[in-house]
Amino acid sequence: MQLTSKIYINLLIFTISQARVLKYDYTDGCQLSEQIKNEIASYKDVKDQILDYVIDGEFKGKTYEELAKFVDKFGARPSGSKVLERSIDYMIELTKSEGLDDITTEELTVPHWVRGKEKVTMLEPLYKNLAVLGLGRSVSTPPEGITAEVIVVKDFDELEKVDESYIRGKIVLYDPIFTTYGDTVLYRTNGASRAASKGAVASLVRSITPFSINSPHTGSQTYDEGVPKIPTAAITLEDADLVRRMYDRGEKIVLNVKLSSKYNEKTSRNTLIDLKGSEQPKKLVIVSGHIDSWDVGQGAMDDGGGMFVSWAAPVILKRLNLTPKRTIRTIFWTAEELGLIGAKAYEEKHRNESSNINFIMESDEGTFAPLGLAVGGSQEARCIVGEILKLFESINATELIEEDNPGSDISVITETGVPGASLYNANERYFWFHHTEGDMMNVESPEELDLGAAFWTAVAYIVADLSVDIPRQVQN
Amino acid sequence: MQLTSKIYINLLIFTISQARVLKYDYTDGCQLSEQIKNEIASYKDVKDQILDYVIDGEFKGKTYEELAKFVDKFGARPSGSKVLERSIDYMIELTKSEGLDDITTEELTVPHWVRGKEKVTMLEPLYKNLAVLGLGRSVSTPPEGITAEVIVVKDFDELEKVDESYIRGKIVLYDPIFTTYGDTVLYRTNGASRAASKGAVASLVRSITPFSINSPHTGSQTYDEGVPKIPTAAITLEDADLVRRMYDRGEKIVLNVKLSSKYNEKTSRNTLIDLKGSEQPKKLVIVSGHIDSWDVGQGAMDDGGGMFVSWAAPVILKRLNLTPKRTIRTIFWTAEELGLIGAKAYEEKHRNESSNINFIMESDEGTFAPLGLAVGGSQEARCIVGEILKLFESINATELIEEDNPGSDISVITETGVPGASLYNANERYFWFHHTEGDMMNVESPEELDLGAAFWTAVAYIVADLSVDIPRQVQN
Repeated sequence: MQLTSKIYINLLIFTISQARVLKYDYTDGCQLSEQIKNEIASYKDVKDQILDYVIDGEFKGKTYEELAKFVDKFGARPSGSKVLERSIDYMIELTKSEGLDDITTEELTVPHWVRGKEKVTMLEPLYKNLAVLGLGRSVSTPPEGITAEVIVVKDFDELEKVDESYIRGKIVLYDPIFTTYGDTVLYRTNGASRAASKGAVASLVRSITPFSINSPHTGSQTYDEGVPKIPTAAITLEDADLVRRMYDRGEKIVLNVKLSSKYNEKTSRNTLIDLKGSEQPKKLVIVSGHIDSWDVGQGAMDDGGGMFVSWAAPVILKRLNLTPKRTIRTIFWTAEELGLIGAKAYEEKHRNESSNINFIMESDEGTFAPLGLAVGGSQEARCIVGEILKLFESINATELIEEDNPGSDISVITETGVPGASLYNANERYFWFHHTEGDMMNVESPEELDLGAAFWTAVAYIVADLSVDIPRQVQN
Repeated sequence: MQLTSKIYINLLIFTISQARVLKYDYTDGCQLSEQIKNEIASYKDVKDQILDYVIDGEFKGKTYEELAKFVDKFGARPSGSKVLERSIDYMIELTKSEGLDDITTEELTVPHWVRGKEKVTMLEPLYKNLAVLGLGRSVSTPPEGITAEVIVVKDFDELEKVDESYIRGKIVLYDPIFTTYGDTVLYRTNGASRAASKGAVASLVRSITPFSINSPHTGSQTYDEGVPKIPTAAITLEDADLVRRMYDRGEKIVLNVKLSSKYNEKTSRNTLIDLKGSEQPKKLVIVSGHIDSWDVGQGAMDDGGGMFVSWAAPVILKRLNLTPKRTIRTIFWTAEELGLIGAKAYEEKHRNESSNINFIMESDEGTFAPLGLAVGGSQEARCIVGEILKLFESINATELIEEDNPGSDISVITETGVPGASLYNANERYFWFHHTEGDMMNVESPEELDLGAAFWTAVAYIVADLSVDIPRQVQN
């Protein structure tokens, strides 16, 4: 999951709007006809068929096994890399081997930021190497690094209060304590430019996570126009807190920061797999995840799992000979991590046909045990999806969370008024592993992936097969 | 905490004997006189005085603050290092500044194993750097490393079943799934020699932990006589499981293992701080922890916290003008991590006076919230300690676990029949951080350290002040 500034704002709004959700139950306003309720209830058998096949039947363990084979073969798949393109080719072949051959790729230009050697060393008051990960698009330091004193601030307010003359020539360390991702990630994404505008020569951020075993977290950041681009990186909670304690004791802290990287542009592809609808093939229910990852770990959680449950949907339906009325389109977004690049290109290219999208789904916040969906769109859309979710009581996946523009990639489409949902799952530990070397297969579980794939497939099928479209928000 | 082979056996016995403990309640056989029960109950006021002073009074936060200052100043303190000796000097000065000057140091020869550069790279079927930590006393590889194919075994039984001709020239990876430390640590401590005896050229072990964020765990290992010494290291759960999956798929895995280290001997010191008893100053109640640490992280948990609660005991009593009848001796063991070296030297040096030890306590399994004590010794000893623990209901630290030879360092003394106890605490996550770069102040909490220091001090005071000695086991 990557978040652009725009999305942060959505996230913030979402965070604030939680209070509203607690007071307000969307079901209060639901006035679904008995006819549609009965129709939805009639999908119980096909839902059971899908769940049985995936959780206890022939597909049991398949999603985990295929995800493991994939990430073990390719490892990390950064935007613009050759390995990402090879992994796209592999997924196309894997899909074809399942008898699904309505596959399209759409080319686009993507950023290619390549991490070089990175080292942060504390020189005073103690000699110590700090675990570090440079942030996406960070510029390099000179080869000998930048050696400077550190100033620690917990937030932008604190930064603003410090006189420029005191910051000039120093390294700024932001050490916000993790509350929500939306609240604290700002120091990762905007910290460098904010520090540079006050004269800092480099910036560091306490990794955006609630928990650590000295594990640094990378992630994207963007430079503001008209401000010097300074090198920027994340250090661990442990080391940030060490620096903070020293700072609060009045000790002088001197670091040497060495970062190197290269940046250029390459061509990559979004991948579209269609399971054509039997009655309204132009109408789309999209299920999606991103195929690129950060350059650390295996990208098994972010977003290998999300991509694979979306891959599983048409595969499972094909194997079960279930063809819904509308087309189910699986999309593997490319270059999500550096700013939803693939999703933006898709939205632009398909803007004229966006009325064809009946519903768009994304899994990019973990594939732990599914709990339900975070749904955006009209009240009626939520009422219909909520009614569908009632079918998933046997696997405890009935919860509907209201979100204005759910998802990360799909938010560029849902914010245009297309109804959509992201997978709501038991992801309390998601940010422990997010963007770290620990994003590997150990985070995933075969049983949870089976539940996720079964749920995802059944929901997509039902939405794509209903006699009615998911109603759109009336645009103001 | 470090465990020698001997101790593993104790641990295994303990693990097995758990079943017995569940069936058998030591209190069934307790026949304490009303007199001793009343005497113990009469310590309620002094116990409250200590708890109030540490948890809510002047000492509140002091243990955490002093521990942080200490580990932030010195960082890791490996056996034989100069920094360990400087940290001992610092603790002596800190103790003197509290008005405690009955301090003795006892010199001994300790191992000095110094980690050099370490790198493990997968060459086939995928190029990938694996996070690694060499194990204590490991020999170096040649500078270009050892490049060889990997064979994966889950335990020694599996190793024994493989023909020597198949192992010869290969790297053995042990990947036991963590159950208990006692059960799985054998593959770290004895894995190299067992693999070498079958012709392996290096050995690796899946880190001994139930949880990981790609965090390798170091630890000691020993070479058997008459078997070639091969380089040995720990890799992470994630990478070990990756190699296992590849291996089970029939893929050929080739690693390059580069390890370097130096090994020699140095002089270090055990540190003894006495708060002389008012009536029987020769009789000792010992509270202890070890001052050395592994060379990763800060050694804040293992065993900075344990050392500091033991340091706090005489400091708190001195500040409160509480002098028990017997002497309270705080010991900072040295060189625990490479084989309980300091404790063994102490036991040898003081063997003739060991009858003076009334009770010996150690904290080396974390200083999370205290729950009670793991107690070794006679039935009567447990009865008295159990009666004392009843006083700690207000902080939920009343549990008595029966253990044959509790502790790591003190086990060399408790196994000679001296009654003793180790701190039993809420340490479910202890092995997540144990021997990793993540053993830093973030593992510790001011509130939990206050509870631990208060509990430790009050128990030590009461045992040292009772009218009766803690009865010894009748030796067979």
